Amino acid sequence: MHLEQYRATFAPELPQALSQLERAVFVPRKRGSTDKEIARLFPRTQEQDSLDVVVQALQGTSFSRTIQKVGVVFSGGQAPGGHNVIAGLYDALQKIAPTSVLLGFLGGPSGILEKRYLEIEKELLQKYRNQGGFDLIGSGRTKLESAADLAASLEVCSTLDLDGLVIIGGDDSNTNAALLAEYFLEHGCKTSVVGVPKTIDGDLQSEEIPISFGFDTATKIYAELIGNIGKDALSAKKYYHFIRLMGRSASHVALECALKTHPNLTLLSEECWEKKRSLSEVVEEITTLIEKRGEKGLFYGVLLIPEGLLEFLPEMQSLIQAINEILAGKGTVPASLPRPLAYLFDSLPEKIQQQLLLDRDPHGNVQVSKIETEALLITLVQRRLEEKGLFEGTFRPVSHFLGYEGRAGYPSNFDANYCYSLGTIAALLIRGSHSGYMATCRSLHLDTQKWEPKAIPITMLMQMERRKGKDKPVIRKALVDFSSAGYQSFAAKREAWKWEDDYQMPGPLQLFGPSDLVNIKPISLRQS
Amino acid sequence: MHLEQYRATFAPELPQALSQLERAVFVPRKRGSTDKEIARLFPRTQEQDSLDVVVQALQGTSFSRTIQKVGVVFSGGQAPGGHNVIAGLYDALQKIAPTSVLLGFLGGPSGILEKRYLEIEKELLQKYRNQGGFDLIGSGRTKLESAADLAASLEVCSTLDLDGLVIIGGDDSNTNAALLAEYFLEHGCKTSVVGVPKTIDGDLQSEEIPISFGFDTATKIYAELIGNIGKDALSAKKYYHFIRLMGRSASHVALECALKTHPNLTLLSEECWEKKRSLSEVVEEITTLIEKRGEKGLFYGVLLIPEGLLEFLPEMQSLIQAINEILAGKGTVPASLPRPLAYLFDSLPEKIQQQLLLDRDPHGNVQVSKIETEALLITLVQRRLEEKGLFEGTFRPVSHFLGYEGRAGYPSNFDANYCYSLGTIAALLIRGSHSGYMATCRSLHLDTQKWEPKAIPITMLMQMERRKGKDKPVIRKALVDFSSAGYQSFAAKREAWKWEDDYQMPGPLQLFGPSDLVNIKPISLRQS
Repeated sequence: MHLEQYRATFAPELPQALSQLERAVFVPRKRGSTDKEIARLFPRTQEQDSLDVVVQALQGTSFSRTIQKVGVVFSGGQAPGGHNVIAGLYDALQKIAPTSVLLGFLGGPSGILEKRYLEIEKELLQKYRNQGGFDLIGSGRTKLESAADLAASLEVCSTLDLDGLVIIGGDDSNTNAALLAEYFLEHGCKTSVVGVPKTIDGDLQSEEIPISFGFDTATKIYAELIGNIGKDALSAKKYYHFIRLMGRSASHVALECALKTHPNLTLLSEECWEKKRSLSEVVEEITTLIEKRGEKGLFYGVLLIPEGLLEFLPEMQSLIQAINEILAGKGTVPASLPRPLAYLFDSLPEKIQQQLLLDRDPHGNVQVSKIETEALLITLVQRRLEEKGLFEGTFRPVSHFLGYEGRAGYPSNFDANYCYSLGTIAALLIRGSHSGYMATCRSLHLDTQKWEPKAIPITMLMQMERRKGKDKPVIRKALVDFSSAGYQSFAAKREAWKWEDDYQMPGPLQLFGPSDLVNIKPISLRQS
Repeated sequence: MHLEQYRATFAPELPQALSQLERAVFVPRKRGSTDKEIARLFPRTQEQDSLDVVVQALQGTSFSRTIQKVGVVFSGGQAPGGHNVIAGLYDALQKIAPTSVLLGFLGGPSGILEKRYLEIEKELLQKYRNQGGFDLIGSGRTKLESAADLAASLEVCSTLDLDGLVIIGGDDSNTNAALLAEYFLEHGCKTSVVGVPKTIDGDLQSEEIPISFGFDTATKIYAELIGNIGKDALSAKKYYHFIRLMGRSASHVALECALKTHPNLTLLSEECWEKKRSLSEVVEEITTLIEKRGEKGLFYGVLLIPEGLLEFLPEMQSLIQAINEILAGKGTVPASLPRPLAYLFDSLPEKIQQQLLLDRDPHGNVQVSKIETEALLITLVQRRLEEKGLFEGTFRPVSHFLGYEGRAGYPSNFDANYCYSLGTIAALLIRGSHSGYMATCRSLHLDTQKWEPKAIPITMLMQMERRKGKDKPVIRKALVDFSSAGYQSFAAKREAWKWEDDYQMPGPLQLFGPSDLVNIKPISLRQS
């Protein structure tokens, strides 16, 4: 039997509070006030309380409705565990409304607009339980935010007579869920819109959402590889590995991987921004590390670089914005750049210049994730080492990008259980006619039994931000918090990691065996 | 407890024939004749029989010597399981010669020349049992082949009074072992030189060596990642993943990964050579695949590309050789190239032209492994799709290189047991004063208990080849054999894989759990 079949038979564990759905009820809990502008934009959903799931002593509550039909959709990039959200949702629906039907919209939110869906039946779903990927129904990046999109979504959900619509996505997708919820309520549509926090990036988190699903598995996969690379570096003693890590803006992935593997240097975008570091300062830090290690006879190393780094270097951000504006108009680069930015642009390797000018998204913005930051740093460090002339030895850099390998892997037991719980909570929210909520669990650092399932109004996470020249309601991206235990632990140890080669090797994700191995949790997991 | 500690307590299994070392004896078996020129060059070791380990009925054989001191060295790139060769060697020595001492030469063969070593003691070794990497003693690529190297090695081994020297390495390192063995015998040095077949590339194999160690684990790690990428492709439905795989000349790694994951297209260098394919033919094949999949509405895919591909395209090989010669002399490229090669050179993307001209090894040869073949193919396919204009859709290529991630991982149980057995056999060879032998096991496709430990004279694997303008005795690199069961299975299925998206997801290497999962063997493993 292959791992695929073994995983299909894994039975996810639920928190105690979700073990008997007929006795699981929501209890409102007062939450903090909403941003004023958000409150104005979301008059119907902004005042909702957050909801804790509790087990009531006696059965017999009459719930607000009998569910007949629910839709579910994946939005954005894959994250391990997605299929388990659907499995948890399906199983809970079968328990609380055995005759209900679950529809999966195909290819992401565009499946809603185009009314493309399939009915998710027991036998079909069985093949996808505890498996990676989003291939049961696919995903896509279409946003539902224009007036026309909202109207079309309403039309489809009404025609299909959906009691609920579960949107499994990241910050933008959950923002869309909040917009839909408000719009549906405004237009008297009965469909409850529920969000589920998905992203390997880990930037959809808050006091109420200790982590988004997928982060645990993805960082375990990356850490396996980084650990192996560290071991290779230590054995061969001749390569400097520059490893860029997926994770868009925030550096949660880099931080977690650093805590798991102890590389010689980990750049955190948030620190670079905080300290207003220039590209040349970053290059100088790396160059100095290499020189000093060289003095100790160490001509190898491991460096972690978050994908979003360049956008968090103030001067690079200015350059990128200036280029965006020039290319949107009639200017040319570098001629139309202000002097200091033109100088910065000229100092970049030709390949990076080309990437800054060519690889643009549909909105005309540079696709920063496509810039090979690790290659940029290698080139600049190489140049700087030569300029300074202090380094005696051979600098042999190797570049890596870890991304797609981690988005669709078999979910860890943590993600499998967490996702299954989130799907279950989504079913309860629909049963209770709650709309504009996101499913979540607190106390994820404890045993699964003790997790505290709950739901929070999405508006609670929102604020106004300027995007593409307009003020828009969005969910705050959670950046690395310098007061968190994870960051503090990293900050305390990183100086030693520079020189002492304390590389750790977490190894491949284990799904069987000793419980302390199969239930490892993210080191940086919030204890909230 | 971490995986590292759990693995340290794993007890490798030995074949039945090695279970009682005091009763394990070698029985000679007549082997085929040696290449004439090899026989001339290796007069003392060429006529040796191959040796089967058998369990003799009664104890009490007097062995040819009591071992007092043995040296061991890693040579070349890492392969998972290396530390277990040392552990098997150490434990066997402790059993058959409890007072013996094991010395590990540091940083590869240069450690022999420079007499740099450490004594491998029980407590130190304990931390490295069943762990990845070669970091206990390091490794290096120094070759021992010049007269001076041989003399220096003799001097060191004699001074240290070594009964045996175990060289853990690939084809070149084992060639060096054969040279040393012959030289030591010629000069009356008692040190038995024993080789152990190591390489993730899988190109050190024969009828007698079903596979080199490390191949199993490395291909499992790569297949985990390829499987995850396939799942990602199937979920996102918008990327073409071009995955280059480490494995130097031969395509064993690509073939094994293809059998494990079923990508849409796998290029095998050996086939390209056999069919005398040109670069443009390869590009045309990929382009056609993308066009035809596009017609079916499929705008994604997974392609595997062996690292050594370009050297196996006859025209590219000619180009590379011509460039090597021109740059060694006074000519310039492309001016000094003959017309057809100049045309080929001009057709390559600028970056590849630079790599062909710049990245050269110490011998002035192009470092083909550093050429980003996957990026080359992407550029040429992109160009060709535009030229033909038949493809309607967006071609979004993503490039990957899987290499260093797989060389130093935790060894699979297969590699852990295999390496431990090889180390044990090496100890027996030294006890029997056998020199110029390589340790191996047949019947690796059966349960560990049933493996057939044996030793073969290294000269049996050797032939004369022209290298750097000289005829040299070398071990034949084993290329993919078109008559093998593995290749035949691949050939039968690959057409279907082009269109049917049968991506398999082997998942992370499992070290605990059901025995059919933890004991998975390479699909392409020889049943010999």
